[in-house]
Amino acid sequence: MDRTKVAQLFAQMDELGGSEVTVAGWVRSIRDMKNFGFVVLNDGSCFKDVQVVMNREKVANYDQVTTLTVGSALVVTGTLALTPDRPQPFELQAAEVVIEGAARPDYPMQKKRQSREFLRTQQHLRSRTNLFRAVFRVRSVAAFAIHQFFQGRGFVYVNTPIITASDAEGAGEMFRVTTIDPANPPLTEDGKVDYSRDFFGKATNLTVSGQLQGENFAMSFGDVYTFGPTFRAENSNTRRHAAEFWMVEPEMAFCDLAGEMDVSEEMLKYVITYVMDRCPDEIDMLNSFVDKGLRERLSHVASSDFARVSYTDAVSILQEAQAAGATFEYPVEWGVDLQTEHERYLTERHFRRPTFVTDYPAAIKAFYMRQNDDGKTVAAADCLVPGIGEIIGGSQREERLDVLERRIAELGMDVGQYKYYLDLRRYGSCRHAGFGLGFERLVMYLTGVDNIRDVIPHPRTVGNADF
Amino acid sequence: MDRTKVAQLFAQMDELGGSEVTVAGWVRSIRDMKNFGFVVLNDGSCFKDVQVVMNREKVANYDQVTTLTVGSALVVTGTLALTPDRPQPFELQAAEVVIEGAARPDYPMQKKRQSREFLRTQQHLRSRTNLFRAVFRVRSVAAFAIHQFFQGRGFVYVNTPIITASDAEGAGEMFRVTTIDPANPPLTEDGKVDYSRDFFGKATNLTVSGQLQGENFAMSFGDVYTFGPTFRAENSNTRRHAAEFWMVEPEMAFCDLAGEMDVSEEMLKYVITYVMDRCPDEIDMLNSFVDKGLRERLSHVASSDFARVSYTDAVSILQEAQAAGATFEYPVEWGVDLQTEHERYLTERHFRRPTFVTDYPAAIKAFYMRQNDDGKTVAAADCLVPGIGEIIGGSQREERLDVLERRIAELGMDVGQYKYYLDLRRYGSCRHAGFGLGFERLVMYLTGVDNIRDVIPHPRTVGNADF
Repeated sequence: MDRTKVAQLFAQMDELGGSEVTVAGWVRSIRDMKNFGFVVLNDGSCFKDVQVVMNREKVANYDQVTTLTVGSALVVTGTLALTPDRPQPFELQAAEVVIEGAARPDYPMQKKRQSREFLRTQQHLRSRTNLFRAVFRVRSVAAFAIHQFFQGRGFVYVNTPIITASDAEGAGEMFRVTTIDPANPPLTEDGKVDYSRDFFGKATNLTVSGQLQGENFAMSFGDVYTFGPTFRAENSNTRRHAAEFWMVEPEMAFCDLAGEMDVSEEMLKYVITYVMDRCPDEIDMLNSFVDKGLRERLSHVASSDFARVSYTDAVSILQEAQAAGATFEYPVEWGVDLQTEHERYLTERHFRRPTFVTDYPAAIKAFYMRQNDDGKTVAAADCLVPGIGEIIGGSQREERLDVLERRIAELGMDVGQYKYYLDLRRYGSCRHAGFGLGFERLVMYLTGVDNIRDVIPHPRTVGNADF
Repeated sequence: MDRTKVAQLFAQMDELGGSEVTVAGWVRSIRDMKNFGFVVLNDGSCFKDVQVVMNREKVANYDQVTTLTVGSALVVTGTLALTPDRPQPFELQAAEVVIEGAARPDYPMQKKRQSREFLRTQQHLRSRTNLFRAVFRVRSVAAFAIHQFFQGRGFVYVNTPIITASDAEGAGEMFRVTTIDPANPPLTEDGKVDYSRDFFGKATNLTVSGQLQGENFAMSFGDVYTFGPTFRAENSNTRRHAAEFWMVEPEMAFCDLAGEMDVSEEMLKYVITYVMDRCPDEIDMLNSFVDKGLRERLSHVASSDFARVSYTDAVSILQEAQAAGATFEYPVEWGVDLQTEHERYLTERHFRRPTFVTDYPAAIKAFYMRQNDDGKTVAAADCLVPGIGEIIGGSQREERLDVLERRIAELGMDVGQYKYYLDLRRYGSCRHAGFGLGFERLVMYLTGVDNIRDVIPHPRTVGNADF
């Protein structure tokens, strides 16, 4: 079909004005004014619609077309007429309208405003609404911005495995991946389930992080990143948790914590700027109808120098704030992890810009983080942003074989499971660092949408795997 | 650390020649010539190495450095000296060499040539060899080329779910995803495993394809693509099968089979050209040591007009070839699926260029493919390429509600499972088409590597989920 996309009409209206074009899309509204009819059509190529004008005398099936309802698919051929004195810059004066597929009148996506809860039951159709068209285009553009950022800096994209026999962090509840029939599992002689007869010859799970395998590749390519799905079988039914979500995990050789923070900061600014630049109509819509502070907050983050403060100093700041009258639900004392309320206080009220909190107590961070000389803290850095709290968690990794082995033993972890990881410290170890960005958290931040279920095409949460 | 990457040395040698730079990387070889030592260093930023020259009188720890073995990590500061009359265009004359991390002498990646079978047992280290550095950079660059191709054409990237309660094709063996303990599963009253008490409230699997969900989004954005992992629990231990692999699945509204073939052809040419352009050293290496016909084959595909032939005509061509003396292991007759030997005959011997075979018998293709008017065939198109056979499978999708419902019933499938899919035909249905590209097959094609285990960072196959 030789058609012109609506995005192209807007991009090239000066050249195309006056000429005949064919547009294919879906009806957003239809009005019959007796001798003239108006159809607002959207083809998904951009946020904007095209207005089709039908002259009853010129469009042979005028009466049939005007009985159509919202959601119907049309192919319209006509003249693109520039209309500089109207709100929309042009209209399509129809010569021929072909009905590609009518929508039945019980179409659930009617023009009236639907609740997000209802729309979650219509995941196959909700991307036809303004809100979800904005969200999912921003998601796509942000994903590309991430690839572009890293590829432009020479990072190698690595697809770490989804199915794994290990647990990257020694924590986190995992989904089992199996071909064993639980109605009739093979058993060992002592009556246990015999995973040696499972598909992979052992028990396997869905990955919770690609970091450890990412490190394998950082030790050959220097700079690498992953960008793929990760999983948590946590029974938490909150606005911020999904069982399946995408993570970006860069890993950089010959890089310390300061270098890691530099790259995180640059990346966030790059993605925000890219999305604001490429999705102005979507950001407009989100700023008007979802979160009135969105554009300002994004511009602010893109143009700020991020603050950097140690965990120890951050705790002092929070304690001083308490002494001065601030109230927190959770206690603030050295050794306890920061809660979202604390993170937001630091970034929104104290520093008033994105803030890295560094050098957390070792006890509340993962085993692979590099121990500082004080013997108490590790070289971790969480990036906090206004409006959300933590968005990125990073650290310098422990590159010293003896220190790492001691830490694994201290934590009672199975050192045998980490043979490959330790090998990286045996053969040409070097300082290195990396971070993890929860991609859905970023999309929530970019769109102002406050429920993770509304930034994932088909979200998976406890009790929910429809579509 | 203020270092310069080796890729940058090569890109900017004219500016950097004569100045002091710091390079960090891993030792590929080391030679002690008594008063002078030579270290070949690679930092992973590009395929090329940098030659470091150490003058015993100038490098304080010369004796220590020269006892190091392959794989050790060094940070070298020195003067970049241009050497226009030597094979390498410059060398680094060391002033200071810092040993970042020595490699133990039992380092498994010694300079001698290792078998690929052995290297599969060293997946955490094998990307330090020339072969795998070439393969995994090509993989990364090809992945980016795919994103760039689709984003540049206005396609929206959609992350379809990995965990799913449905089977996209009504076929294919799947992995179960569960938190049920098979040692002690919850049971229903009649003694069956009670999946309503599993994490998602029902039985779930790993996806075999994102196509059906992709169609949801094509019906709002027009053009979309997925690029993510898919899974098959097939017990096949071949060079071409993995249990976990990445797929690219574009889906296009208002597009028929011819349009689908146009996009597939353009995409393949784009990716090949992009990789040849960005990875000349890697392609050189692969062409010299893996597959001597590689570059010629890729150039040929990138510059050919792909042939298009119907399945019916293809069968006649093969039967005529048989009559003229060609021998095939598998029978050739109308109604039987083409085998790799037939596909390769068509593309390598008959057409001598990439070839689309179209309009296959309905009985050997999936339920969602659009039925042709002849009542026997469907609007499918497989893209065959010399050296490999099928690389892309595409089709126009059945957009007619009644025809699709009839087909689902005919095949004895559960129509209730396809409610959402059928809804797309109820509310503004339109002609549409899409295809699936197995990304690892493409990487094998781009590199000449003939085993899928060698193009996946950490491959998952029957009995194998290490690393």
